[in-house]
Amino acid sequence: MVRAVELAARGAGTVLPNPVVGCVLLDAHGHTVGEGWHERAGGPHAEVNALRAAGDTARGATAVVTLEPCNHTGRTGPCSEALLAAGVTRVVVAVRDPWPTAAGGIERLRAAGVDVVLVTPALAAPAEDVNRVWLVATRLGRPFVTFKAGVTADGRVAAADGTSRWITSAESRADVHLLRSRVDTMMVGVGTVLADDPWLTVRDSDGMPIGPQPLRVVLDSVGRTPPGARVLDDAAETLVATAADFGGGLRVDPAAVLSELYRRGRRHVLLEGGPTLATAMLDDDLVDEMLCYTAPVVFGAGRMMLDGGRTATLVEARRAELREVRRCGPDVMLRYAFR
Amino acid sequence: MVRAVELAARGAGTVLPNPVVGCVLLDAHGHTVGEGWHERAGGPHAEVNALRAAGDTARGATAVVTLEPCNHTGRTGPCSEALLAAGVTRVVVAVRDPWPTAAGGIERLRAAGVDVVLVTPALAAPAEDVNRVWLVATRLGRPFVTFKAGVTADGRVAAADGTSRWITSAESRADVHLLRSRVDTMMVGVGTVLADDPWLTVRDSDGMPIGPQPLRVVLDSVGRTPPGARVLDDAAETLVATAADFGGGLRVDPAAVLSELYRRGRRHVLLEGGPTLATAMLDDDLVDEMLCYTAPVVFGAGRMMLDGGRTATLVEARRAELREVRRCGPDVMLRYAFR
Ligand SMILES: NC(=O)c1ccc[n+]([C@@H]2O[C@H](COP(=O)([O-])OP(=O)(O)OC[C@H]3O[C@@H](n4cnc5c(N)ncnc54)[C@H](OP(=O)(O)O)[C@@H]3O)[C@@H](O)[C@H]2O)c1
Ligand SMILES: NC(=O)c1ccc[n+]([C@@H]2O[C@H](COP(=O)([O-])OP(=O)(O)OC[C@H]3O[C@@H](n4cnc5c(N)ncnc54)[C@H](OP(=O)(O)O)[C@@H]3O)[C@@H](O)[C@H]2O)c1
Ligand SMILES: [Zn+2]
Ligand SMILES: [Zn+2]
Repeated sequence: MVRAVELAARGAGTVLPNPVVGCVLLDAHGHTVGEGWHERAGGPHAEVNALRAAGDTARGATAVVTLEPCNHTGRTGPCSEALLAAGVTRVVVAVRDPWPTAAGGIERLRAAGVDVVLVTPALAAPAEDVNRVWLVATRLGRPFVTFKAGVTADGRVAAADGTSRWITSAESRADVHLLRSRVDTMMVGVGTVLADDPWLTVRDSDGMPIGPQPLRVVLDSVGRTPPGARVLDDAAETLVATAADFGGGLRVDPAAVLSELYRRGRRHVLLEGGPTLATAMLDDDLVDEMLCYTAPVVFGAGRMMLDGGRTATLVEARRAELREVRRCGPDVMLRYAFR
Repeated sequence: MVRAVELAARGAGTVLPNPVVGCVLLDAHGHTVGEGWHERAGGPHAEVNALRAAGDTARGATAVVTLEPCNHTGRTGPCSEALLAAGVTRVVVAVRDPWPTAAGGIERLRAAGVDVVLVTPALAAPAEDVNRVWLVATRLGRPFVTFKAGVTADGRVAAADGTSRWITSAESRADVHLLRSRVDTMMVGVGTVLADDPWLTVRDSDGMPIGPQPLRVVLDSVGRTPPGARVLDDAAETLVATAADFGGGLRVDPAAVLSELYRRGRRHVLLEGGPTLATAMLDDDLVDEMLCYTAPVVFGAGRMMLDGGRTATLVEARRAELREVRRCGPDVMLRYAFR
C-alpha cells in the first residue's frame, strides 16, 4: 500500500477534478507484476494502467489500490470489470469511494467471487491523505481549501508598516509556485489586492507565467478591486465575487462562492490570504488544511497571520493535526489538517 | 568530533557554570582508546576522564576535544599539562576558549611540540552549538538567554479571555520541565505573575518539586508582585527585580539584571514570558535563542507570543537561524538561534 500511495501521489495536480489513485499488482509470491496510477483527467485509471503493464501475469494476481475501483462508465470503462476480465482474484482497498455514481466496485467484485479486503484505518491514513483534495471535495460538495501563509516565527504576515515582501525564502516561494501549479483555483480577499496588488499566477523563476493558470477569485463585497489591478490582467481568468452575486448580505458569503466553484468543476482552492478572510473562513469551518511557510525572523509587531476571529477562550479553539514538517531552505513548512 | 560532541552533550545541565566538553582519544589506527566528558561542576575535566579511561594507551594518541584544553589550575589542574604528561602527540580542537583565565592551552601544547589542529568552521559548528550557553555567557559577560513559549500555530500564547492552560501537550510540558532542570535561572515579567500565578519550579509528572531548583526572577518595576504569589513560596529562591535596584528609570533594565545574575554565577536564564518582556528583551538584543513549542490549534484572536516591539518594517526585523525541529507528541518544537 505504501508503494500504491507513492504512485498515486504522481497524479497530484494533473488529475483534477479526478482523484489521485495508485495500483500495484502482485503475483502469488508477492512480486510486483504491474504498477499504474491515474495520470491525467480523462486518461486511463490506475487499475487499467497497472493491468496493461502486467499483461497475462495479472491472472490470479492481487491488486492493491488506494481507492475503491470504480463501477461506472465515464470517459473510461469501469475498473471493477477490467479487474475481473484480467483474472485478478484478490483486491486490497484503502479508501471507499464517496462518490455515489462511481461507488459499488467492491460489491461488484465480491459478487463475482473476488476476495476484497479493506485495510485498517492506520494503513488507510496515507491513502486518505494523498487523495484528500478529491475525497473532501466529493464528500462536502465544495472544493478542498488549502490556506497558505508566509509567516515569521512569531506568526506575522506583514510588518507594522505593511511590508511583507519577502518574508520567506526563495526556496519557499518556489514551493508555493509548485503548489499553485497543482490547484485549480486561487482565492484572496480584496484587502490583499489593495495592499499587495498580486498577480496570483503560476510563474517560473524568471517571473514569467507558465502552464495552465488556475482561476483567480477575489472576495470583494462592494467591488473595490481597482480596474488596473494585476489580478484583472489577461494572464488568467478571474472571478470577482461580490455580495450582490454571492450571499446578498453586507459581505460575500464564502460558502456560496465555494458551492459555485464546485458547480463549475473546481476542486482545490488555494487561499492565499489575507488574515481577515482566512480567519472568517476558518470560523465558518471552510478551511481544510493550513500551510505555514515559517521564516526564521521575528517582527514583534505587525499583521497577524490570523486575526479578528470568534474564538473567545481556549476550549473553543479549532484543533488540527500536524501532518507534515519540511525544511524549505532556511524556512520550515508546517502542514496542518483540520477536522 | 561528532562523538566528542555527543559526549559533551551529556554534561548539559549538570556542569553550570562550567562549559560542556567532550574528549575522544584515538590511537594511531584511529581506534578509540578513551572517552570522557565534563560531568559536573568541580569534577574532573573531559580530557582527564578520557586519559583515565585510556591509561597507558594514551601514549602517542590523538585527542579530539570540543573546546580548547584549559591551561590554568582551578578546582582541577590544567588539561594541557595532563595531555602532555600522558604522551598525547596530536590534539584536534573545535572551539577556542573565550575565557582569558583558562585560554592558552593550544599555545602551551604547541610549545611542547604537540601537533594542534583547529577544525573547519563547518565541523566546529556542532561543538559551538552544544556549548552555546557557556560560550555566549563567557563572551558577553551575561547569562545566555533562552526564550521559551507555548504557542498556537497562529503564534498566540493566550486566547482572547486570557486562558492559556494548556495550549501545548503533556509531552511538550514534560520537555519544558527537563529544560527547567537544566538552567540555573528562570525569568518572567510581573504581567505573567499577575495573569497566571505560576510556580516556576521544576516538577515531576505528579507536580511535586524535584531536584535543585533554579533561581526565580521577576522583573517588576514598581513591586506589583502580590505577597501571596506562588513565585514567593519557599520551593526555590526568588529575586524580585525592581526599577529602584536595577536601572533606576521607570522600568527595570533587563541588561542590569542579567549583569547581576552573571556576577552571582548564573549562566543560563530561561525566559518564560510574557510577550511584553520577551519583546523588550529581543529589541535590546538580550535573547540568544527562542524555543517555540507549537500546538496544532488556532485561536485567530488573543495575545501574541511577541508584541509591542520596535520593528517598523521588514528589513529591520531580527533574523535568526532554525537550528532544531523536533516533534513533542502532537506539537512541534522549533529552536531558533539569534545572531
Ligand atoms: N504573508 C502572506 O502570506 C500574506 C498573504 C496575503 C496577505 N498578506 C498581508 O495581509 C494584509 C491584507 O490583509 P487583509 O486582512 O486586509 O486582507 P484579506 O483578508 O485578503 O481581505 C479582507 C477583505 O476581504 C473582504 N471580504 C469579502 N468577503 C469576506 C468575508 N466573508 N469575510 C471576511 N472578509 C471578506 C473584506 O472586504 P469587503 O467587505 O470590502 O469585501 C475584507 O476587508 C496585507 O498587509 C498583506 O500584505 C500577507
Ligand atoms: N503560553 C506561554 O508560553 C506564556 C508564557 C508566559 C505568559 N503567557 C501569557 O502572557 C500574558 C502576560 O503577558 P504580559 O506581557 O503582561 O507579561 P510579562 O511580559 O511577563 O510582563 C510584562 C510586565 O513586565 C514588567 N517589566 C519589567 N521590566 C520590563 C521591561 N524592561 N520591559 C518590559 N516589561 C517589563 C512590566 O510591568 P512593570 O512596568 O510594572 O514592571 C510589564 O508590564 C498572560 O496572558 C499569560 O498567560 C503565556
Ligand atoms: Zn476506475
Ligand atoms: Zn581542563
